[in-house]
Amino acid sequence: MEHLSPSRRYAILGTGAIGGYYGACLQQGGCDVHFLARSDYDHIRTHGLQVDSPDGGFTLPSVQVYASVDHMPRCDVVVVALKTTQNHFLETLLPPLLTAESTVLLLQNGLDVEVHVADLVGDRRRVMGGLCFICSNKVGPGHIQHLDYKSIAIGEYAQNYAPAGISDELESIAQDFEAVGIPIIRADDLLRARWKKLLWNIPFNGLSVILNATTDQMIHHPEARQLSEDLIDEVRAIAAAYDRVIDDHDVDKMLADTETMKPYRTSMKLDFEHQREMEVDAIFGNPLKAAKLKGIPTPKLEALYQQLTFLNQIHSRSD
Amino acid sequence: MEHLSPSRRYAILGTGAIGGYYGACLQQGGCDVHFLARSDYDHIRTHGLQVDSPDGGFTLPSVQVYASVDHMPRCDVVVVALKTTQNHFLETLLPPLLTAESTVLLLQNGLDVEVHVADLVGDRRRVMGGLCFICSNKVGPGHIQHLDYKSIAIGEYAQNYAPAGISDELESIAQDFEAVGIPIIRADDLLRARWKKLLWNIPFNGLSVILNATTDQMIHHPEARQLSEDLIDEVRAIAAAYDRVIDDHDVDKMLADTETMKPYRTSMKLDFEHQREMEVDAIFGNPLKAAKLKGIPTPKLEALYQQLTFLNQIHSRSD
Repeated sequence: MEHLSPSRRYAILGTGAIGGYYGACLQQGGCDVHFLARSDYDHIRTHGLQVDSPDGGFTLPSVQVYASVDHMPRCDVVVVALKTTQNHFLETLLPPLLTAESTVLLLQNGLDVEVHVADLVGDRRRVMGGLCFICSNKVGPGHIQHLDYKSIAIGEYAQNYAPAGISDELESIAQDFEAVGIPIIRADDLLRARWKKLLWNIPFNGLSVILNATTDQMIHHPEARQLSEDLIDEVRAIAAAYDRVIDDHDVDKMLADTETMKPYRTSMKLDFEHQREMEVDAIFGNPLKAAKLKGIPTPKLEALYQQLTFLNQIHSRSD
Repeated sequence: MEHLSPSRRYAILGTGAIGGYYGACLQQGGCDVHFLARSDYDHIRTHGLQVDSPDGGFTLPSVQVYASVDHMPRCDVVVVALKTTQNHFLETLLPPLLTAESTVLLLQNGLDVEVHVADLVGDRRRVMGGLCFICSNKVGPGHIQHLDYKSIAIGEYAQNYAPAGISDELESIAQDFEAVGIPIIRADDLLRARWKKLLWNIPFNGLSVILNATTDQMIHHPEARQLSEDLIDEVRAIAAAYDRVIDDHDVDKMLADTETMKPYRTSMKLDFEHQREMEVDAIFGNPLKAAKLKGIPTPKLEALYQQLTFLNQIHSRSD
């Protein structure tokens, strides 16, 4: 099996709910994985990683973990699982890890996050975006609790988010993930995939903070659901202005999935509760800018952005 | 002095931050005042009322307090200082207190609160609305802390909020208040006065809950202030559709006053913190209905209403 060969080497930047989970799965499946950790470095070096999951939990007693990229090997695939609020660190984190043909895969929500990274890595290396459909939390140092879902929609970035099709490299990465049980949606149009994810993140991440609520409370309350659907309508209007028309069917399915999802505190709500900086710019600010560029009125998105910006600055401490 | 004569008898329904303060001032000035209290009845009967105030605090060791309207005398002026969420009780509270010529004065925020009361009391009695510009809190049983401001804009209700001018009765009540140091704005157009008050209550009461913030935090933060001004623009547009054009000058003054006001947790925020029902319908729901009747788009007001309705139902317990 290809994924058991050591030929494809992965770096995971950020060993939290996302990077810790997917990185541990890749290693568990036999991949050569190198983790960058910060606050949990000592713990992971000593105790490894623990994953709890309804699919069957597992422990990796020994992982290749680093406190600095300076000691990491160059990797074929650099998976960025940091929060977007830390992307300014990529300027120093990425170069030591890149071969001439590395791929950078950003497992991050929001809009426009690839643009800056594409500039950093240059034309000859690939940049991909991955939208994770997963409920998982970091519940302790090196300890990931996977709750529900796990698929990733991966698409390749091309300038101005032009649809880039499915490259061999994307197919190979998809197969590495699928070999360890992670369903991969191959997205030939990364921008469409990002807007579809934002349809969920904007209402449910944003309102979970404002309303101090879990997803089930929001989806089952008439006014909160209506406000969520109003926000979805605004986001669809922006996407449509960029020639990404999202079908009713996709929206209906997303709402239906949310109705039956287990009660979930979103990652943004957890960030807020722990007074960590929230990803307001990538998830709300950049879509709002995109709306203004095209003259699309999005007053409820704007109100949510204004509220979250206040909360991020007044009530969060640091990251 | 007229207010020292016992001829004008006041009932105060609700002995809290508003009713407790103004009622105590009236009694301190020599008026014949009868208080209805609920949870604080025993304490007030034994210890009276205490008012702390930068204008000079005072204690009334003995007040005429009642646990039920059945034991109260009929009064010339019935001051309703309940929260609007309790106005359904007025059907039973008011009739025992009314003479053939009583005036009911509603010291309440919001829109349309007089309509139901006017039906209750009949054509021959007057209904007035009072908009209180005051920062005060109830800090313990029978204990009111007055922080800043105290004026009241009083206007008389006529059917459909037609401007009603200044009646002799309104003038007499104004003089009773002024005799005890409460500045009274005589409003010949109650609806205009209500919209002007809503210009403040809608952004600052509403957002103080959503943003967990005091007035000074909101007015001095760029996004929160912009959102407040966006809400103000929407409220002005509704008022204008009802032929109440609010001048720029009035808005600028209100914002300037809020900039210099002492840091203040609004009454709605205190209600939310104490898990008491918030006055969402009177302050947000009724203006939103008025907007829809005239086809005025008010998306940010609607979003705020949707958010507060959720919070009122999910996170408040009872009143």
